[in-house]
Amino acid sequence: MGNIVNSYRDFCEQPKNSNIRLSFPAVCFVWQIAMIILFGVFVRYNPESDAHWPEYRRMKNFTDLENDFYFRYPSFQDVHVMIFVGFGFLMTFLKRYSFGAVGFNFLIAAFGIQWALLMQGWFHSLDYNDGKIKIGVENLINADFCVAGCLIAYGAVLGKVSPVQLLVLTLFGVTLFAVEEFIIISVLHAKDAGGSMVIHAFGGYYGLSISWVLYRPNLGKSKHMNGSVYHSDVFAMIGTLFLWMFWPSFNSAICNHGDGQHRAAINTYLSLASTVLTTYAISSLWEKTGKLDMVHIQNSTLAGGVAVGTAAEFMLMPYGSLIVGFFCGLISTLGYIYFTPFLEKHLKIQDTCGIHNLHALPGALGGVVGAITAAAASTTVYGEEGFRGIFDFNRVAPVQGGYQAAALCVAIVFGIGGGIFVGCILKLPIWGDVADENCFDDEFYWEVRNHFSVQSSNQSKETRI
Amino acid sequence: MGNIVNSYRDFCEQPKNSNIRLSFPAVCFVWQIAMIILFGVFVRYNPESDAHWPEYRRMKNFTDLENDFYFRYPSFQDVHVMIFVGFGFLMTFLKRYSFGAVGFNFLIAAFGIQWALLMQGWFHSLDYNDGKIKIGVENLINADFCVAGCLIAYGAVLGKVSPVQLLVLTLFGVTLFAVEEFIIISVLHAKDAGGSMVIHAFGGYYGLSISWVLYRPNLGKSKHMNGSVYHSDVFAMIGTLFLWMFWPSFNSAICNHGDGQHRAAINTYLSLASTVLTTYAISSLWEKTGKLDMVHIQNSTLAGGVAVGTAAEFMLMPYGSLIVGFFCGLISTLGYIYFTPFLEKHLKIQDTCGIHNLHALPGALGGVVGAITAAAASTTVYGEEGFRGIFDFNRVAPVQGGYQAAALCVAIVFGIGGGIFVGCILKLPIWGDVADENCFDDEFYWEVRNHFSVQSSNQSKETRI
Amino acid sequence: MGNIVNSYRDFCEQPKNSNIRLSFPAVCFVWQIAMIILFGVFVRYNPESDAHWPEYRRMKNFTDLENDFYFRYPSFQDVHVMIFVGFGFLMTFLKRYSFGAVGFNFLIAAFGIQWALLMQGWFHSLDYNDGKIKIGVENLINADFCVAGCLIAYGAVLGKVSPVQLLVLTLFGVTLFAVEEFIIISVLHAKDAGGSMVIHAFGGYYGLSISWVLYRPNLGKSKHMNGSVYHSDVFAMIGTLFLWMFWPSFNSAICNHGDGQHRAAINTYLSLASTVLTTYAISSLWEKTGKLDMVHIQNSTLAGGVAVGTAAEFMLMPYGSLIVGFFCGLISTLGYIYFTPFLEKHLKIQDTCGIHNLHALPGALGGVVGAITAAAASTTVYGEEGFRGIFDFNRVAPVQGGYQAAALCVAIVFGIGGGIFVGCILKLPIWGDVADENCFDDEFYWEVRNHFSVQSSNQSKETRI
Repeated sequence: MGNIVNSYRDFCEQPKNSNIRLSFPAVCFVWQIAMIILFGVFVRYNPESDAHWPEYRRMKNFTDLENDFYFRYPSFQDVHVMIFVGFGFLMTFLKRYSFGAVGFNFLIAAFGIQWALLMQGWFHSLDYNDGKIKIGVENLINADFCVAGCLIAYGAVLGKVSPVQLLVLTLFGVTLFAVEEFIIISVLHAKDAGGSMVIHAFGGYYGLSISWVLYRPNLGKSKHMNGSVYHSDVFAMIGTLFLWMFWPSFNSAICNHGDGQHRAAINTYLSLASTVLTTYAISSLWEKTGKLDMVHIQNSTLAGGVAVGTAAEFMLMPYGSLIVGFFCGLISTLGYIYFTPFLEKHLKIQDTCGIHNLHALPGALGGVVGAITAAAASTTVYGEEGFRGIFDFNRVAPVQGGYQAAALCVAIVFGIGGGIFVGCILKLPIWGDVADENCFDDEFYWEVRNHFSVQSSNQSKETRI
Repeated sequence: MGNIVNSYRDFCEQPKNSNIRLSFPAVCFVWQIAMIILFGVFVRYNPESDAHWPEYRRMKNFTDLENDFYFRYPSFQDVHVMIFVGFGFLMTFLKRYSFGAVGFNFLIAAFGIQWALLMQGWFHSLDYNDGKIKIGVENLINADFCVAGCLIAYGAVLGKVSPVQLLVLTLFGVTLFAVEEFIIISVLHAKDAGGSMVIHAFGGYYGLSISWVLYRPNLGKSKHMNGSVYHSDVFAMIGTLFLWMFWPSFNSAICNHGDGQHRAAINTYLSLASTVLTTYAISSLWEKTGKLDMVHIQNSTLAGGVAVGTAAEFMLMPYGSLIVGFFCGLISTLGYIYFTPFLEKHLKIQDTCGIHNLHALPGALGGVVGAITAAAASTTVYGEEGFRGIFDFNRVAPVQGGYQAAALCVAIVFGIGGGIFVGCILKLPIWGDVADENCFDDEFYWEVRNHFSVQSSNQSKETRI
Repeated sequence: MGNIVNSYRDFCEQPKNSNIRLSFPAVCFVWQIAMIILFGVFVRYNPESDAHWPEYRRMKNFTDLENDFYFRYPSFQDVHVMIFVGFGFLMTFLKRYSFGAVGFNFLIAAFGIQWALLMQGWFHSLDYNDGKIKIGVENLINADFCVAGCLIAYGAVLGKVSPVQLLVLTLFGVTLFAVEEFIIISVLHAKDAGGSMVIHAFGGYYGLSISWVLYRPNLGKSKHMNGSVYHSDVFAMIGTLFLWMFWPSFNSAICNHGDGQHRAAINTYLSLASTVLTTYAISSLWEKTGKLDMVHIQNSTLAGGVAVGTAAEFMLMPYGSLIVGFFCGLISTLGYIYFTPFLEKHLKIQDTCGIHNLHALPGALGGVVGAITAAAASTTVYGEEGFRGIFDFNRVAPVQGGYQAAALCVAIVFGIGGGIFVGCILKLPIWGDVADENCFDDEFYWEVRNHFSVQSSNQSKETRI
């Protein structure tokens, strides 16, 4: 056994080669062709997106408007913006890794949503009459949610992995996600409208574990690239704001029609507003002369949205949402100040974007908030029908709270376990990642035409800007 | 009396100290805790966002779709984008104040919406049975509208005030707004769907008055920072375009269901299109060789949306909207060319973003357009039912026109009066604003890691980019 | 005849003068006033946006929600973002033409939508009772679609034409579009929900033909400006992503209520995801060491949305959408690698943004896909009612397929013919375009305040960034 581990270690310590000219296109092509075949065998439209809808509608006595499309499509588009612009631009803060941030985010999201439609489809949308997965707008939202977990994990390893590694990370990430989600939603019958546990805790710990396995002892060699410039911080604010603004849509997108979606949007709106104030306060309090730090503003202001996810549909009450946001802004910002350096130094976890403070910890907190709120639920507050509508399983409140807590454990176990497993695969020196001194630099995976000739008074020089 | 004024002046002339390490976090924390307590005492869900909705729905014979959420949520999200990305990025045009623009915009909006929910709730959404404010999606939209007034005012003082001053400006601004709105909407029964008067005229004059009181005679010392660079102008266009595109949602968000929202969106779309053409024309006509000026393009193209706000829901007719937009583009651009310098030189009003030309003047014009359109309304054009639906108060059209005009006066008086009052508070040397020579520079409130090492041929230099 | 051609050539070869101080404002003013008059004579609200709606609604037994506004407004806003931010920012990739990209895009879109409302209104929304055009939200969407054709054409001539030329290009482009659309939709009764043929093939060939006529033999003189810098490529990704994310709304915006909109969104979502993977694969495969090229990522990832446009509403099946996207990403990327240089060298077509690969070719492919899918349609797959709902004209499937193919020919003929005609007008030396050595430079039409003083150790220099 020790022999196997040793030879694995030796194998992993071979010199790095960032040439991905064959491996990367090969993975893309093979994968996409596999998707076409699997979709051909398995995926069809559901009754609301199939051309037989007029007949189905008449049978069900629906109007066109009662097509689920009109309940969910605006939220879907907001979630879509969060996945592609939100996550993508949030990671553009590095001075020379903006292409990789927004470009690889784009790639793995487009790659992941197809696999997610299949994996989640098999678990949740399989029509047992014909063995086909029937998809509609809710499946698109869920696929976006599913890749969010992988994009969170990308935040931990940003700048340190190759696009091939990211595709592998996503392939396994989506698979693990779908299983974990099935256990949490369909086996434990836990509720997690905004995915605090299913998406954020899982994705956060998945990324941190991978980063732990892929620890780079000499990362300090590319320290000069691991920082922002003025305009890259402004770009990152585009990501922050689109995430922040559309988070109410994220948490309400797959809630119950009517009051469920309505309440989830209100709770998230309030929690996020509250988080902003404590984030700014802590950021100012911990810097000399009270200056604000863009890292905190870009990230911790979002923690309230994460933490209110599980309980978004519950009767958390407006003040409850404010309280959740209050503590999340506080904890997340302190996390950036104390915990991220601690993780790096003592636990050897290099977390480029600080996903521990933005996703893992607030996600876990959100699971706890959800468990408490569920345990305290009563038919007085919810009404008979409302209670049954939200906790669709036939349980008393404290038992539901216990199952919520169990669900959080499942998410964390899947995140850590899956992350270590996938990390060991990614450590193999066959994926084209760069050497430690070349991290955080777009040069190695992108044609960078960034030489801009500056005509000054009497000479012409080339400056990188 | 003279003594008091003199000692106030002496007190105000103390040297500036931009250290906000204690005051700023203290204000944030105290405020957020106060919000939690007040929300705990006062704020609950309304019947459409409460878990009792299924019972309420059955009682009212509604379907889930008739939950107001589905009428207003897409518009709400568009308004939300305008507030956070639109206003935020519009102000990023300064070369070194983009963090302050987008970051403080974020802060005061998140701070203001909570207070707005309370203030507007007491006036408009109080349930007299239990003394609670009952909130739903329309309250969220109104809260966003309310902070828009303060963000407009921020435009006048951009780069010259501390974040603590901005919080004070917002606290009073929201309060004044709520009272003014109550008088205009609930006492005078004036209509102002898009807030030309309530939001833009008020916010504009509020900001200009504050800027007048805070006049900085030596602002010329930071003249080199009061301008744009190439990419900061491109960032600002993100703000301009999101404001421009979503303005139809802004003006239609709280209109009547059905034709009201529909017509408001059409009117705004047309007015804005028309404004663009006259803005470009005037900008080109006034520059040598016909060059266009980014300041005009970024700002004046939006004036048509402001000016069509009050009348957006009225039967303004498509050509009427074009006419409003035509003159607004013209007047607003000329305002930037002639009026802003005049204001600074002769009235001692330093208006960083030119809110006079984008909000104050077009807002007042919008009030006038609204008064005329209301006065000319007839049941022939609107239909009996349509007329009663829009002008819900029992008045003949010319009387309604008079009340509309009165409403405009109220907005302006509140703006100017409130601005002078708040300006005097902000002039106290306790809020941590910077000295005249340090204006328009992010260095004083933000950790700016903007030194980017440029590896040129045989030397290493640090260049600020 | 030869004489006329020769004197036209001689006339066109006069030296260029980029002063547009009179011509540009004159065109804007005359045009906008003409619009106001024409709207005054012709344009009114339709029954769903008119204040008589409450009576109309009762007559039709509708609820407020059945106002078309609620079916289409969210999609409209997404399309609006694509037109103004999507197309605008996609073209900001040039190092020094971002103002022109986003600013002129803004101008011609605002100019074009007004004329489109009239032209399309006369053809499709004329009320024969009173001779008025009755507009609603669907007209706004169609106007946005119509200017998309002109914005595509702008991509081919980006950086080489004056704003006056762009206005002329738009005036004729919208006119040609409306006629072509009338023939395709109302005469041939072809279906083209997402406008593969009507918008993309037409717009693409229109722009390429104009660029062919306006061929600049000495364009190499401004070669140093015809490229990107690091941050301009990041700006362009904003355009790419907003186009990519909202394309499902583009293709579904004017589909049938219910399953039509739903299915079009799903098909587009899938096709786009598939395109991303093949684009990345080909981009990597053709560069040494497998590096990715931002030009491909910014453009070819969108080709799948173009090509699935015609068939979006059809029962293309999820795997069918993936297949369309698969080949489009492949073909479009290879187009950038081989075809754009070929076009420039051998056909003398200078295509700044490569619209041939993003719009013309994928649009034509989309027409072919649509024809095949329509020819293969059956009532088994669509259901009796579904078949009649989608192919509203009384034809058997193969005949419909033939008409679809005919429609594609109409689009291409209009594009090429119209482009050559308009190109000859634009070649006249009266429109203020720049000389060959001054292309791709904002300096000539914009006040560029881009000198940013850098305080280095002991000297002050001005650097352009």
